[in-house]
Amino acid sequence: MLNTVFAPQVVGLSLLERETVHRRLARTVGNPAAKSALDMAIWDALGQSLDVSVTELLGGYTDRMRVSHMLGFDEPAAMVAEAERIRDTYGITTFKVKVGRRPVTLDTAVVRALRERFGTAVDLYVDGNRGWTAAESARAMKEMADLDLLFAEELCPADDVLGRRWLVSQVDVPFIADESAVSPADVTREILGGSATAISIKTARTGFTRSQRTHHLAEGLGLEVVMGNQIDGQLGSLCTVAFGASYELTARRPGELSNFLDMSDDLLAEPLSIADGELAIRPGAGLGAAIDPGKLRHYRLD
Amino acid sequence: MLNTVFAPQVVGLSLLERETVHRRLARTVGNPAAKSALDMAIWDALGQSLDVSVTELLGGYTDRMRVSHMLGFDEPAAMVAEAERIRDTYGITTFKVKVGRRPVTLDTAVVRALRERFGTAVDLYVDGNRGWTAAESARAMKEMADLDLLFAEELCPADDVLGRRWLVSQVDVPFIADESAVSPADVTREILGGSATAISIKTARTGFTRSQRTHHLAEGLGLEVVMGNQIDGQLGSLCTVAFGASYELTARRPGELSNFLDMSDDLLAEPLSIADGELAIRPGAGLGAAIDPGKLRHYRLD
Repeated sequence: MLNTVFAPQVVGLSLLERETVHRRLARTVGNPAAKSALDMAIWDALGQSLDVSVTELLGGYTDRMRVSHMLGFDEPAAMVAEAERIRDTYGITTFKVKVGRRPVTLDTAVVRALRERFGTAVDLYVDGNRGWTAAESARAMKEMADLDLLFAEELCPADDVLGRRWLVSQVDVPFIADESAVSPADVTREILGGSATAISIKTARTGFTRSQRTHHLAEGLGLEVVMGNQIDGQLGSLCTVAFGASYELTARRPGELSNFLDMSDDLLAEPLSIADGELAIRPGAGLGAAIDPGKLRHYRLD
Repeated sequence: MLNTVFAPQVVGLSLLERETVHRRLARTVGNPAAKSALDMAIWDALGQSLDVSVTELLGGYTDRMRVSHMLGFDEPAAMVAEAERIRDTYGITTFKVKVGRRPVTLDTAVVRALRERFGTAVDLYVDGNRGWTAAESARAMKEMADLDLLFAEELCPADDVLGRRWLVSQVDVPFIADESAVSPADVTREILGGSATAISIKTARTGFTRSQRTHHLAEGLGLEVVMGNQIDGQLGSLCTVAFGASYELTARRPGELSNFLDMSDDLLAEPLSIADGELAIRPGAGLGAAIDPGKLRHYRLD
């Protein structure tokens, strides 16, 4: 896609003509990942030419984000043990618990076990990846009513339009739209349709240019925002934290920045590291991401 | 305000910490003009330090805007003569006609005279500054139904809530909210309340940082945008065109950039000039606005 479709559209433009790039790429439907990669590469190169970090170009609010860690499906005891390990190793104290199994008590038992183990020392939220029906979601939320959840994310499908609206209207924590609200127009539609009360921004699918639009839209609509993870490696996580640190609204909540911990290798010459529950942006110009040429050669697919 | 309230809040911050500046200024209610002046001065200084224009920092879509000219209240013949002079002198072919007098035929006769004189060679829109009632506005719009208006702006007060909503629902051209939708939250409220279907962005009241937010919000909501004029002199007009040229949505329609033509003197060392109906951004870093120190000394109020 990049070489055959998008590159010819932007060759010859300056790094400063970002809105022209944005509009030319938008002529092609779909392919958000390729467009986002190109967009973020342009911001990185612009930052490098100006000797300014991408975070400073975007807004410069802070230089780090707290990190939330996702806990995948397992027995309660195993998930508690994993949370302990992550907390002890990285200082992370916010956990996003995957839910959506049947019966719902399989998952609510996990959340309860985590709360019982850690008390108020951790923040917990749940992500259903549309696994439950609206009715199951409502039942699960009632079962977890005393567990002080931070958010609930995509518990049931947004395409179950009226069921989802009914669910969101009764959930008393922000309900995050993720895969159901990718573009700014999706955000407008889903929020006005009552399908969510908060959104997840993922730089892997909206780059920096469209993530900035989505941020400003969400802020103007009065929504909570979470920086999400699109199975990002280290470079993707660096993009996410670079954007999230740019604004107060995105830096306010822990970002989903720990997925790379599960990967055995990566492209960055110097690995990212999470300490005291935080991930910092890289000092220096652009994204500050030096790529290891040997690894790039090894892993590239073209 | 600037010296006593806002300056102490931002002294010591870098030009790159714009979001921190933005949030600190937002602690103080009101004073949009002072906040905007400070915000735009920061973007100008940042552009100068990076040797990049403000337009390029914001988005870099184009380097100029077409200009629309406002025609004040007078007899039809005099307003036609003024439009001829403006067209012949500056090449401007878009006119915003002030309306809101009683009976409405005082104003509709002007718009008709302009259309009869110029045919399809000009674009016309009307701005009521809330001068009519909703019913008068509806009657005037019916009288002008054959005059091919581009927009209608603030014909009746937004605080006449239900009357305004009734009016907007029947007007078949974009209805611009100006003074009724200053902040992003105002835009959300007024648009969702059916009080408008388009908005005016004025850098004099939202600076660059909040104008960018308003632009991204409007785009995400699917609204038309016009760059408006807050009785701007040359420096203010330069700020408006610098912002408007940054994005396709703001550059698509002529901007209200000609108000300075009515002023006998200004602060800029080199005057702005409108030619072929267009105003260009200044080449060079920041806003490219060199201030004449003698004039500044003469006109300053502190």
